[in-house]
Amino acid sequence: MCALLLSACGNLQNSSLSSGGGDTSKSTVQTTSSSDSSSYDVLLSGGKYKTSPISGLTAADNSNQFNSRSFESGLMSLSKKQFSTNSYVFQEGQVLSASTVTNWLARKSKKNSSGLNPASNGSTDENKRAPMYFQQMLEEDYLTKQDGKYKLAGMSIGIAMNKIDYYQKKQYGATYKTTISTEQQKEQGQRIAQEVVKRLRANKQVGNIPIVVGLYSVAPEDTLVGGTYFQYSVSKSGSLGNWSTLNYKNQMLPTVNGENAINSSDSDAFTNFKDNIQDYFPNLSGVTAQAHYDGNNLKSMDVTINTQFDGLAQITSFTQFVQQSASKYLPSGADLDINIQTVDAQQAVVTRTNGKFNSHVYNAD
Amino acid sequence: MCALLLSACGNLQNSSLSSGGGDTSKSTVQTTSSSDSSSYDVLLSGGKYKTSPISGLTAADNSNQFNSRSFESGLMSLSKKQFSTNSYVFQEGQVLSASTVTNWLARKSKKNSSGLNPASNGSTDENKRAPMYFQQMLEEDYLTKQDGKYKLAGMSIGIAMNKIDYYQKKQYGATYKTTISTEQQKEQGQRIAQEVVKRLRANKQVGNIPIVVGLYSVAPEDTLVGGTYFQYSVSKSGSLGNWSTLNYKNQMLPTVNGENAINSSDSDAFTNFKDNIQDYFPNLSGVTAQAHYDGNNLKSMDVTINTQFDGLAQITSFTQFVQQSASKYLPSGADLDINIQTVDAQQAVVTRTNGKFNSHVYNAD
Repeated sequence: MCALLLSACGNLQNSSLSSGGGDTSKSTVQTTSSSDSSSYDVLLSGGKYKTSPISGLTAADNSNQFNSRSFESGLMSLSKKQFSTNSYVFQEGQVLSASTVTNWLARKSKKNSSGLNPASNGSTDENKRAPMYFQQMLEEDYLTKQDGKYKLAGMSIGIAMNKIDYYQKKQYGATYKTTISTEQQKEQGQRIAQEVVKRLRANKQVGNIPIVVGLYSVAPEDTLVGGTYFQYSVSKSGSLGNWSTLNYKNQMLPTVNGENAINSSDSDAFTNFKDNIQDYFPNLSGVTAQAHYDGNNLKSMDVTINTQFDGLAQITSFTQFVQQSASKYLPSGADLDINIQTVDAQQAVVTRTNGKFNSHVYNAD
Repeated sequence: MCALLLSACGNLQNSSLSSGGGDTSKSTVQTTSSSDSSSYDVLLSGGKYKTSPISGLTAADNSNQFNSRSFESGLMSLSKKQFSTNSYVFQEGQVLSASTVTNWLARKSKKNSSGLNPASNGSTDENKRAPMYFQQMLEEDYLTKQDGKYKLAGMSIGIAMNKIDYYQKKQYGATYKTTISTEQQKEQGQRIAQEVVKRLRANKQVGNIPIVVGLYSVAPEDTLVGGTYFQYSVSKSGSLGNWSTLNYKNQMLPTVNGENAINSSDSDAFTNFKDNIQDYFPNLSGVTAQAHYDGNNLKSMDVTINTQFDGLAQITSFTQFVQQSASKYLPSGADLDINIQTVDAQQAVVTRTNGKFNSHVYNAD
């Protein structure tokens, strides 16, 4: 998983705004410089950060908040394989408009011939209806400086595919769900991706630049983890090339509903960590983790600790103790992001990035 | 001001629990090890973190949330002058009981001869009544290892003195306030401190150990900054020595209600920082700071930035940009603690400690 941490131990003292476009006034084109060569600089076009007009558009309901960030970070991570952070700057997608993508996300119909979800077959039965496969779309633009100006030189497209399609039989009615198989996600995702690339190629802003497409499986509402990208492909100039399979998996720890651990030694390590801190600080209301895997290999862990105390000395001491316990018990190869919070507020954070610990207590003075 | 940051760039890999008391089982005495030689290790007595029974007891109402943390961190900071972080371990105060301190914080009366606030003179007039001077009390214990056991070897006492005493003339009635002069704070604070030390010396747990006493001025409810310690004294073994004056001041930036800046160049620097980030990212709902001074010398700044966006790419880019702007505009000598948040959640944090920047975006994968 792409951690997107702006880890900067001392190397950003001389950071500055770079100006481009042959004009140094801030009203033209500048970038925010990343402190880290593994992150993209970001284009500030016209002196402002520009959001993508299609951001947040969805086909059906899904209240799982963990999807949106991994949908973004995962696509940026895939993009790095194709568009080097040294040569390209990032901008949120500016080519696709909200109205275009709204039509694409809708069902195909007489009124909406560009719809990429299947036409309704009339049924509302969970197993007989044609589900909404295509849930959300993300465009990321990658630019290079050519003749003193930033030009679109690469694009990444995220295609979010439902695992479960939530729907109502009548407006404001009860919610039903249609489960979509992994095979259907793959088949439908590839169909949609090919059509999207074909349409983008017809857009003269895009032309023949490389396009990365990632297929993302949206996590169901009740999973407490985000979804993951399961396939990606690159179109160098024409249509899409071969599909590569990704083996990313997320799991909540401790495991729930009798689920088997993806890797039992990681799960045991987390239990030991949890037991250790709960032994010394009994007033904790919860210690949980999202474990992120590539295959069976733990890449990172996001831990949330809910405390019932917020005194400074206790939080400070607890933060020290959490760091010690993490160092002792949690798998040494994984990046860590440990949030310590009360119901009201964030209290402290402990991170480990590439083996280096860092911690911070909020409002300590 | 005591920053209490557990700054640890890579030096905590080998941290571990130290066990004391001649027994290695966790049910006896251990400490959490600080990652930083300028912070105290913390005693885990009986294998648990022990809170102070007097924590949170107050004489009168004051809803200013910024007081409680600076009351704690300021006393720990004063303690470091007397009790070296290398020789002493910290424990929240265990000597004074809640019932004792509840009586001390109350008015002196026939029923409560130990009350350290003045007896009521019968008046409820704002300018004629005897106000509640003494608002809150804090005990911090400092222990050293003697013959294999941790023993109480030093104590610090925080005496919080009201600047404004909020009161009701009848239960559930309107709130009135009596303002207390700086001279009265000082005079009453010293009287209370001397009496407290006298009573502590009579307690055989305390005996003749050094006691640090700090007098803290509680910030009024509407100031948006915390209070500060204004005097401290050390009692080596008997009564208190001379009082030393402290010149700590806190100020909200931008300044409000036509208040003059403590240091106009800092205030201008903050305005430039604020304008710069608002130029590039117009959708910010607020950029404010608590500036912490020793005299006219800026020690640290806690900046809060409220954003209306929470997309990952935008938050990440914004966090980069905030760090660049802070490096460029904010006074280089001051420690920084910059919190980036939406109404719902903490989004990112940027810190500068001893000149070293560090930043973290939450839930980036």
